[in-house]
Amino acid sequence: MNTTLTIALDAMGGDNAPDAVIGGAMIARERFPNVRFIIVGDEDKIAPLIARHSGLAEVVEIRHTKDVISSGDSASTALRGGKKSSMRLAIEEVKNANAAGVVSGGNTAALMAFSKVVLRPLPGIDRPAMAGFIPTRRGERLMLDLGANLICSADNLVQFAILGAVFARTVFGMAKPTVGLLNVGTEDQKGHEAVREAAAILRQSDLPIEFHGFVEGVDLGEGKVDVVVTDGWSGNIAIKTAEGTAKMFNGFIRELFKSSIFARIGYIFAMGSFRKLRARLDPRRYNGAIFLGVNGIAIKSHGGSDALGFATAIGVAVEMAQQGFIEKVKEEFDRLTPTDSGLRAAMA
Amino acid sequence: MNTTLTIALDAMGGDNAPDAVIGGAMIARERFPNVRFIIVGDEDKIAPLIARHSGLAEVVEIRHTKDVISSGDSASTALRGGKKSSMRLAIEEVKNANAAGVVSGGNTAALMAFSKVVLRPLPGIDRPAMAGFIPTRRGERLMLDLGANLICSADNLVQFAILGAVFARTVFGMAKPTVGLLNVGTEDQKGHEAVREAAAILRQSDLPIEFHGFVEGVDLGEGKVDVVVTDGWSGNIAIKTAEGTAKMFNGFIRELFKSSIFARIGYIFAMGSFRKLRARLDPRRYNGAIFLGVNGIAIKSHGGSDALGFATAIGVAVEMAQQGFIEKVKEEFDRLTPTDSGLRAAMA
Repeated sequence: MNTTLTIALDAMGGDNAPDAVIGGAMIARERFPNVRFIIVGDEDKIAPLIARHSGLAEVVEIRHTKDVISSGDSASTALRGGKKSSMRLAIEEVKNANAAGVVSGGNTAALMAFSKVVLRPLPGIDRPAMAGFIPTRRGERLMLDLGANLICSADNLVQFAILGAVFARTVFGMAKPTVGLLNVGTEDQKGHEAVREAAAILRQSDLPIEFHGFVEGVDLGEGKVDVVVTDGWSGNIAIKTAEGTAKMFNGFIRELFKSSIFARIGYIFAMGSFRKLRARLDPRRYNGAIFLGVNGIAIKSHGGSDALGFATAIGVAVEMAQQGFIEKVKEEFDRLTPTDSGLRAAMA
Repeated sequence: MNTTLTIALDAMGGDNAPDAVIGGAMIARERFPNVRFIIVGDEDKIAPLIARHSGLAEVVEIRHTKDVISSGDSASTALRGGKKSSMRLAIEEVKNANAAGVVSGGNTAALMAFSKVVLRPLPGIDRPAMAGFIPTRRGERLMLDLGANLICSADNLVQFAILGAVFARTVFGMAKPTVGLLNVGTEDQKGHEAVREAAAILRQSDLPIEFHGFVEGVDLGEGKVDVVVTDGWSGNIAIKTAEGTAKMFNGFIRELFKSSIFARIGYIFAMGSFRKLRARLDPRRYNGAIFLGVNGIAIKSHGGSDALGFATAIGVAVEMAQQGFIEKVKEEFDRLTPTDSGLRAAMA
């Protein structure tokens, strides 16, 4: 695609801002030559960084503001006091159709709150969700919610399933992505009421979803389904537990290769392959949590991310915009609502 | 200790029963020469297996029954129809003080239901929990609940914290085990109401607990705390996600060592160290989920476990019995209730 696309960046969000943001923009510019940026933040800090990267200035517009949302702010503090913050102004660029999407590495709760207030939930969506990528044996897959909604109703979960399926079709380019509901077992009677009711709706409806049924924590790494749907409480705990287990393993393997002279020699031979594995599991490759269900593309980059990770998050926004994600979700919900409500009525 | 100790075994529970049960008893007999067994199940099947292991018959008493709880039975079906089942009769040996503890590899829901009905919850415990071992960089640690109570109140979580702390003191032999509440973040305002209220009670009370505060999924593999407390919904999902991630890693490493001739040579050198790591993370070493909070020692062995895993589960029961776990928990709750209620009243 050669159409020019503009992405708004919150220059001031994240531990390594604004350096990682500007560095990320530079990497993304090389990957996506058709992309331009609106970079929102303190011009005194941003402009010199942009000037360092040759060719970046010509694809960047700066929107100056001194106000910043701090990482400790609650959502309500941010909403009240952050009207001129770099985060909110960046999101408004999407609202005002100056940008096709926004990326921020700042405070997650504030970003979610601003996205809801400024962009508004899509018709048919009660509560937007935070989705993210998980590494599996079959490559990256999608999981939602990752913490935006700690407790979810059956309806919330069904809406997440539709959002996730559309994402997998448009952004992953999968023809028939499978969707699984995370549960403590795979039998019908397992789990609490909301998850059982959501399964009943997904099983009986004629939603264009390949509903696999329940999946368990052990199935995540296997990549048993393409989209894992769960409440934000367990989604957050699951994704962080996977991260922690991966760290533990890496630690064990580092120790292992130091444990004997034979192991050291072994490492020298296997080093190249280990580097490839490490690159494959590099968290920066999975960066970019997506606020699904708001009327616009809003991506959260990990707060600790560097320029490479930030560029990955920009890539997610670009991909979603190029594939017309928002339009496709709207179509899907327009088409489905009558059937879906008919189904609910029939079940009641 | 040289006092004789008797453990009741449900011979018919688990995928590999009764072979794994009898094999496990034989391994445990070698590890704990002071232990005797009451083995409950179909004598026609059990007796020939016992006869195969020299020296086992002399420490075994068989209680014959033909009835078996099947893995698909719901708790209520088991309670109604399983009065003469090997599982229930084995638990009754503990109730009747013929055995110091019981181990079964059968249906978890049925085992929990029988434990509650036959052994009864301990005074001060509203809902017993299922606890299990998790591998961490600092060695094995305890986590509860793992799925017995999907949704928990603040009081439930506080009781789990006390049970877990007593377990870590008596069975792990830790002087001051630290306890953490699993949450989606570590700041005070994170999480839902029950987890925040539980934290408030644990922080302010003078319970003899080293309360660390909130921990996240990423902290589990690190072994940041000795006892991780959570509801059964997220506990089950977290422990299975960790298991799945470990499997994914193992798969990647197997592929890695086949990926090039250099990697193959590397493996030959590092093989010994890899075997040690595999042994360290062998799930059979972490076998044995504990029903904490019932008035008796009841251990669930993993359904797919072999004799070695079953022996580990027997070991947990032996350890708990020898350390007088039940008596210590009772003392703790006796001593704490007044302070605790005073505290609650003060907070209300």
